[in-house]
Amino acid sequence: MKSKSNTRTSAPFITDNFLLQSEAARHLYFDYAQHMPVIDYHNHLSPGDIAADTIFQNLTQVWLNGDHYKWRAMRANGVPEAYCTGDKPDVEKFEKWAATVPATIRNPLFHWTHLELKRYFGIDVLLSPETAVEVYETCNACLQTPEYSVRNLLRKMQVEVMCTTDDPVDTLESHQKIATDGFEIKVLPAFRPDKAMAVEDPLAFNHYVARLEQSADVAITGFNDFLDALKKRHDFFAEMGACVSDHGLEELYAEDYSDTDIQHIFAKIRAGKPLGVLEIRQFKSAMLVYFGIWDWEKNWTQQFHLGALRNNNSRMTARIGPDTGWDSIGDFSQARALAKFLDRLDSGNQLAKTILYNVNPSDNALFATMIGNFNDGSLAGKIQWGSGWWFMDQKDGMESQINTLSNMGLLSRFVGMLTDSRSFLSFPRHEYFRRILCNMIGRDMENGELPRDYPWMGGIVQDICYNNARAYFNF
Amino acid sequence: MKSKSNTRTSAPFITDNFLLQSEAARHLYFDYAQHMPVIDYHNHLSPGDIAADTIFQNLTQVWLNGDHYKWRAMRANGVPEAYCTGDKPDVEKFEKWAATVPATIRNPLFHWTHLELKRYFGIDVLLSPETAVEVYETCNACLQTPEYSVRNLLRKMQVEVMCTTDDPVDTLESHQKIATDGFEIKVLPAFRPDKAMAVEDPLAFNHYVARLEQSADVAITGFNDFLDALKKRHDFFAEMGACVSDHGLEELYAEDYSDTDIQHIFAKIRAGKPLGVLEIRQFKSAMLVYFGIWDWEKNWTQQFHLGALRNNNSRMTARIGPDTGWDSIGDFSQARALAKFLDRLDSGNQLAKTILYNVNPSDNALFATMIGNFNDGSLAGKIQWGSGWWFMDQKDGMESQINTLSNMGLLSRFVGMLTDSRSFLSFPRHEYFRRILCNMIGRDMENGELPRDYPWMGGIVQDICYNNARAYFNF
Amino acid sequence: MKSKSNTRTSAPFITDNFLLQSEAARHLYFDYAQHMPVIDYHNHLSPGDIAADTIFQNLTQVWLNGDHYKWRAMRANGVPEAYCTGDKPDVEKFEKWAATVPATIRNPLFHWTHLELKRYFGIDVLLSPETAVEVYETCNACLQTPEYSVRNLLRKMQVEVMCTTDDPVDTLESHQKIATDGFEIKVLPAFRPDKAMAVEDPLAFNHYVARLEQSADVAITGFNDFLDALKKRHDFFAEMGACVSDHGLEELYAEDYSDTDIQHIFAKIRAGKPLGVLEIRQFKSAMLVYFGIWDWEKNWTQQFHLGALRNNNSRMTARIGPDTGWDSIGDFSQARALAKFLDRLDSGNQLAKTILYNVNPSDNALFATMIGNFNDGSLAGKIQWGSGWWFMDQKDGMESQINTLSNMGLLSRFVGMLTDSRSFLSFPRHEYFRRILCNMIGRDMENGELPRDYPWMGGIVQDICYNNARAYFNF
Repeated sequence: MKSKSNTRTSAPFITDNFLLQSEAARHLYFDYAQHMPVIDYHNHLSPGDIAADTIFQNLTQVWLNGDHYKWRAMRANGVPEAYCTGDKPDVEKFEKWAATVPATIRNPLFHWTHLELKRYFGIDVLLSPETAVEVYETCNACLQTPEYSVRNLLRKMQVEVMCTTDDPVDTLESHQKIATDGFEIKVLPAFRPDKAMAVEDPLAFNHYVARLEQSADVAITGFNDFLDALKKRHDFFAEMGACVSDHGLEELYAEDYSDTDIQHIFAKIRAGKPLGVLEIRQFKSAMLVYFGIWDWEKNWTQQFHLGALRNNNSRMTARIGPDTGWDSIGDFSQARALAKFLDRLDSGNQLAKTILYNVNPSDNALFATMIGNFNDGSLAGKIQWGSGWWFMDQKDGMESQINTLSNMGLLSRFVGMLTDSRSFLSFPRHEYFRRILCNMIGRDMENGELPRDYPWMGGIVQDICYNNARAYFNF
Repeated sequence: MKSKSNTRTSAPFITDNFLLQSEAARHLYFDYAQHMPVIDYHNHLSPGDIAADTIFQNLTQVWLNGDHYKWRAMRANGVPEAYCTGDKPDVEKFEKWAATVPATIRNPLFHWTHLELKRYFGIDVLLSPETAVEVYETCNACLQTPEYSVRNLLRKMQVEVMCTTDDPVDTLESHQKIATDGFEIKVLPAFRPDKAMAVEDPLAFNHYVARLEQSADVAITGFNDFLDALKKRHDFFAEMGACVSDHGLEELYAEDYSDTDIQHIFAKIRAGKPLGVLEIRQFKSAMLVYFGIWDWEKNWTQQFHLGALRNNNSRMTARIGPDTGWDSIGDFSQARALAKFLDRLDSGNQLAKTILYNVNPSDNALFATMIGNFNDGSLAGKIQWGSGWWFMDQKDGMESQINTLSNMGLLSRFVGMLTDSRSFLSFPRHEYFRRILCNMIGRDMENGELPRDYPWMGGIVQDICYNNARAYFNF
Repeated sequence: MKSKSNTRTSAPFITDNFLLQSEAARHLYFDYAQHMPVIDYHNHLSPGDIAADTIFQNLTQVWLNGDHYKWRAMRANGVPEAYCTGDKPDVEKFEKWAATVPATIRNPLFHWTHLELKRYFGIDVLLSPETAVEVYETCNACLQTPEYSVRNLLRKMQVEVMCTTDDPVDTLESHQKIATDGFEIKVLPAFRPDKAMAVEDPLAFNHYVARLEQSADVAITGFNDFLDALKKRHDFFAEMGACVSDHGLEELYAEDYSDTDIQHIFAKIRAGKPLGVLEIRQFKSAMLVYFGIWDWEKNWTQQFHLGALRNNNSRMTARIGPDTGWDSIGDFSQARALAKFLDRLDSGNQLAKTILYNVNPSDNALFATMIGNFNDGSLAGKIQWGSGWWFMDQKDGMESQINTLSNMGLLSRFVGMLTDSRSFLSFPRHEYFRRILCNMIGRDMENGELPRDYPWMGGIVQDICYNNARAYFNF
């Protein structure tokens, strides 16, 4: 790129009115949205770091490590892997990131980057090679102080409750320590049993069953033991305050099967034999029903993240492992199985509160209308369509989700934003969402498409930012 | 929802300039669109009510009963079924709806509601719990007068022609009475033979065949009798003024088959035996060709509503029946079979005028370009892509359909809006469409993307609002 | 259409500020974009016409003949085929087109038409029946002068490099002549071996093999000979300056196969026997890998145009041949096979620079994220998602592609626009793209979503308009 950037312009980029393009939008944001506490009901933060109240030594550690969004941008910008996930020094990794930022204009990373530098560190200069050293040193100096410990980072962002993402075999000892410490922010575990369904790979699955035996203290000789062990963990998660589960799947599985089928399939994989395609799908179908019923019994909320095609680059996945930024959007068929699965649980009056997330925006309308099939009046907004997720977690994606939900459902009952992030510096994404939401409603008010009634519209904004989630999850 | 709404603001919400955001838009709407008569070439209104010139006793009866859009919103808002389709008193049902309306902001229901209250009853207050009694009583007082009989409701909206949706076995006696009465608005039947293709359920299908025997006065012993009986009904519909057919399908069926296959399939189902998946698809494929040819012979227009996934909630469907708001958007493959079916008819020079409607907006571009494959110059706009349907029948959906049609076809040849509604109070949807259309063209004129030539642009607006449909359907 | 158009309004329609709706947009366009040379790295122009430096006798020949966009619009407007592809006199064809233009408002044809009349001929009146004669005569008078020879038309548009689309069996003698002539615009061939994979039709395929034998001077008795012959042509294309290949496919093929499978499949089709569905897919899968590796070995860029459903109207295709405007957008599954194919090449470190184009906008997000799976940091923007193609080649389509690429990748690394056209008058599409791009970035700058830093943003604009393509293709 031959362009020169002037990243030291006197006027700050992140202004008070950032993204608020009308008087009504500003009124809604400043008077209604801005000061609401944050409920982050799904993220991938490390409970260990919260328990230890970690102090990060530099910006690379807290901001770049583990952030596949940034790695993808760097790679697309021609940055070698050694500076992304490799063993280059932290300062050099940061320089490569700083050199990439000016090329990220119009990507959410550009806004996130500067919003995060501003909110956590008060930095107004734009990150670029020219400002890299200054930014790095300023941030590092802050980070090394107790004021920037993990818990203080969460406090700074008005976080009230957050849910991590945990495997059934996790001990949750960090969650226990956080609670015991009397940390005023609720840090709750979430039950994510993906590995308990991953029967594609007999070796890995059996290894997982061994870990489950230990974790649940149950000897697993047959499928019923397997279920018992998982249920025991589900109960334990509940004791630890969990009230949400989560599933990351390409598609919902809703094959027909009998209990005997599942017993046989389980026996087969335990014998180390690979399963057929239908068997794999039947097993997953069965597990999803069990998990769903447990969630319903405990009045939890089940979450489904659907449609990602993962780990597509086998060369790089082999080298640096899964979930390192080689994922993309798939085009799976979603409608029939989603309807069948939800109907299966609903038929027995055992359908828990449910949040569906799609990663392919082409499925937006499908998801927005699917939730209406099972919103039966028993609870306002019982079935939810989740906020723009992953590749959709940006202004256009959020606007599209908000518009489609508005058009095909009830926006006013929406439980709103979550970070889904692995970095402790991602919480300004709630602010980002709130600004976008206020901007959209404000625009409609100014256009005459909504009444100019601030208490009403502002109330709905507050509901979406906070009240709805609070009521929905029983926090 | 904790917000309080001020639904009595002095300024009316539905202003003259509602949705008309530029001077050009207003010029187009007021000088060209507003006064054009309405052709509603597809709806689900009751011909019985028109024949009887029904006077409704209250707003619940004419507005809420039968309206699955409202029920879905109420259910999503936590309203129990008894207030939707159940046996609660009409006034209580209305109160629940009134309490839901403030939560419907940004959903088309919010605009429809207030446009309908304004246009039929002159009401300017926003519907809410606070205004519910006043609105209910005002409207009921109106409704009970002859001025608000069904026929007068249609007259009030400048309706010139409308097409209902009728089963081949219907007697059409209501249509006959309406015509005999000399009602100046043309109320034409439309041929919708979905049940004559619904061979998934042998019992229901054979029951239907029995009704068809009676209706057509034909003894049906084999497939040829079945065809004869249907053809007789098709002829009768034509005598009654019908000139459109309609089909509600998940996808077009275009399997290969022989006449012998179809004879055997028909014999099999008549013997009460369930059909295989391919047999079901072959039978439907064959019937669609027969229907298509009949339509072509009579210069009718065939309509296809494609892509809905229906009755997904089996618990509620069992309780209150089909088509009660448990439907959503599917993700069926549409392209190949659609092309093959249309080509099959076109190859024999037997392709009738055709309108394709998709319910999944992800298929917009597919449908917009599919019509171009069979627009062969024999008639301007011979193959049409229908206006935003069902879940897409809202501002964003219409704008998206209009934009995609513009980009990939000829907007100027579009036959425009239809209500598709079951309520006699839905006709302001034509106004809603016209305002949106004028707003879009007006915006382009002000942006310099279209010439500022009112007679030209206004003429196209009038074509889309009325002239094109009038010419297309041979009304 | 009853509307009258006033196509002689005094103010010209194509103004200097056309599509540039903000001060920032105008600044970016006039100071950065406008004067950049054009690299048209994929089109369907006739090298023969460039070699001969053809002078067209009239506007119909250079503008209407071969343009299926215009034919589709005319047919949708009710113009009989004789005036599109038939034998009506050129002047009458032009009149029919002129009568259709006023009905094309909001279609890209409307903008293209007037931009082309303005840029090539300085014409400001809008084309309509009223102005048809004047426009036709003015343009014809120009066209018949040497100033409007094919080479001069290219010079007028600041073209620096262009790539045609050529079959492996082409002699490339026109390219040779152009080079020998010392024409200062680089006219390079591109390798498009679609017919070498079209094994659905044994007769046509074997006919093609015979042509290949002759072209490559290789006797083809088995699959290895077939490969050798193609490789010889690939080498020859490289000698002639080619550095891109191109493939037009419904979907990527990535079946599993062995070398022996392919040998047998080849032998079978050479024996004139029809192949099974899997065999066809396996053969294509294999060929794509061979072509991909050859491209990688030579540091070429491979292009894939995916998702069109072609020649859907068999009656018209039989009458006037393929690629005459009976094509539409398909809904093929794209994700898995695309990932598998790219991964197959990448696993062996043999993945060439690649550009993926989708024709179905529902696949936008899928494609935008797919490229990220194989952008491994080895080269900035190594895997590209191509500009809005075919039905997507319009303002909304480009904006959607630019926005999705921005949100999910790096817009700043985008290699930008190409015409993909068959007409020598299509080059203002680069201007059209540049105006749209500047308008989008300018709007963001004015909204505060991008910094108001002209050297930076203008530099990125210049990169996308020219610098990126120049660097990427090694021109």
